[in-house]
Amino acid sequence: MAQLIDGKAVAARVRAEVKAEVEKLKAERGLVPGLTVVRVGEDPASKIYVNGKKKAAEEVGFNSWELHPDDKITQDELLSLVDKLNKDPAVHGVLVQLPLPKHIDAERIISAVRPEKDVDGFHPMNAGLLSAGKPAPRPCTPFGIMRLLREIGCDPSGKRAVVVGRSNIVGKPMALMLLAADATVTVCHRKSNLPAEVANADILVAAAGVPELIQGEWIKPGAVVIDVGMNRMPDGKLKGDVEFDKAKERASFITPVPGGVGPMTIAMLMRNTLEAAKASR
Amino acid sequence: MAQLIDGKAVAARVRAEVKAEVEKLKAERGLVPGLTVVRVGEDPASKIYVNGKKKAAEEVGFNSWELHPDDKITQDELLSLVDKLNKDPAVHGVLVQLPLPKHIDAERIISAVRPEKDVDGFHPMNAGLLSAGKPAPRPCTPFGIMRLLREIGCDPSGKRAVVVGRSNIVGKPMALMLLAADATVTVCHRKSNLPAEVANADILVAAAGVPELIQGEWIKPGAVVIDVGMNRMPDGKLKGDVEFDKAKERASFITPVPGGVGPMTIAMLMRNTLEAAKASR
Repeated sequence: MAQLIDGKAVAARVRAEVKAEVEKLKAERGLVPGLTVVRVGEDPASKIYVNGKKKAAEEVGFNSWELHPDDKITQDELLSLVDKLNKDPAVHGVLVQLPLPKHIDAERIISAVRPEKDVDGFHPMNAGLLSAGKPAPRPCTPFGIMRLLREIGCDPSGKRAVVVGRSNIVGKPMALMLLAADATVTVCHRKSNLPAEVANADILVAAAGVPELIQGEWIKPGAVVIDVGMNRMPDGKLKGDVEFDKAKERASFITPVPGGVGPMTIAMLMRNTLEAAKASR
Repeated sequence: MAQLIDGKAVAARVRAEVKAEVEKLKAERGLVPGLTVVRVGEDPASKIYVNGKKKAAEEVGFNSWELHPDDKITQDELLSLVDKLNKDPAVHGVLVQLPLPKHIDAERIISAVRPEKDVDGFHPMNAGLLSAGKPAPRPCTPFGIMRLLREIGCDPSGKRAVVVGRSNIVGKPMALMLLAADATVTVCHRKSNLPAEVANADILVAAAGVPELIQGEWIKPGAVVIDVGMNRMPDGKLKGDVEFDKAKERASFITPVPGGVGPMTIAMLMRNTLEAAKASR
């Protein structure tokens, strides 16, 4: 029977660490980290996410601002807004909440954020620095997963890690981080033989966005199972990418959904913003 | 008994394709691709490599220049030289030959080349664009290997690809390219159980830089074996990372060393420079 990985508790710990460092930074350098979130239009999910980020930012002692242009904003207007934030020395982190309206090229906007202020870690420059093993803001979800592994005493070195999903936000950066931590890393997707791959995973990260794609009986006994899935079911409940009830019989550690990986994302956003502030000037 | 993959012949074909496109570009847009190679100091191996690149550039009809500052050049002087090349509209590709003298920070120099002119594909921005699956100059060696696979009719989709080695120049970009081509990709290194991993590889790319690290009997029967190793032995001969004589008994296709992957690198550099010229203005 697996131990549950309590992402809520670890996330709270990360925020407490950030808060302590913010106080030190204020005392020693008179510097207050600043995070600006840009939320375009009225996507209801975005509103919830952005509120969570603002709340966390206030809790850790950041300056936090929300800009909220309506969805008629043009791409050029949004670009010049980003440019203003790039130049504002009080703003250390700039986060443009996705999705953006269809008439706006999201990649163009993300690439316009200065890499040092890209606290989501989505800028191609930061993806490249991650690939090269250089310091840069890391994508928050996989960064948070690395922290969860550390918390449970799981050192990836020499282990077989299998990542299901190859998104730019989770799967690929996750694979690169596990590789940098000396795991032997396999990346899977819809063309992969999942049962065979999962059976060889000492560490399994499921980030496919398909409810219960990973059957519990595929899991290698003793594996660490990290479930990034947040699939909203017709009954309103959230389901992960892993068949939790059966997987927990075989895994040594497993993240619940919700309350596993989810809370880590915002916590690591706080960490990235703090680091951006520390590196500023 | 494996078929040999004739990298020399494929590289010649790539150069011929580039040459034909250069002629078209000249005729239609009056545009001649220009490649500048910067070679600092007197590294003897660098001299040979640079001569190979210049020769290929001339053969395909590029303008080609070599700048050859002595090894006393300061980092700032080299940076301003790169800056001049960045601004020169006749120069579409800028290649700073490595290694650089110890007093120069090679990463700093490579990051100073404009990503559009970084025809080696080493700039972090280009590594990030590769990771994101966006167009950008690709690192030449793995890019050449993708071409070799195409030439032998090997579509990586759905296959298990195993990459041994995780350098920024070969291993990691190779893994990302194979992943983009829908292979299930595993990256191995010194902490990996190589015999077990290699035994499951439909496509094996060996890029560890260790002579005959991969034993022939580990190879999965019918596998495609790509050997990036170029290890100079005490007797002066080149050896690959794969135990060739035994591996060729099991593989369906295998690259010889030399004459396999090696010739592709310069050929793809020509391709990258041509594409940089086509995208210019």
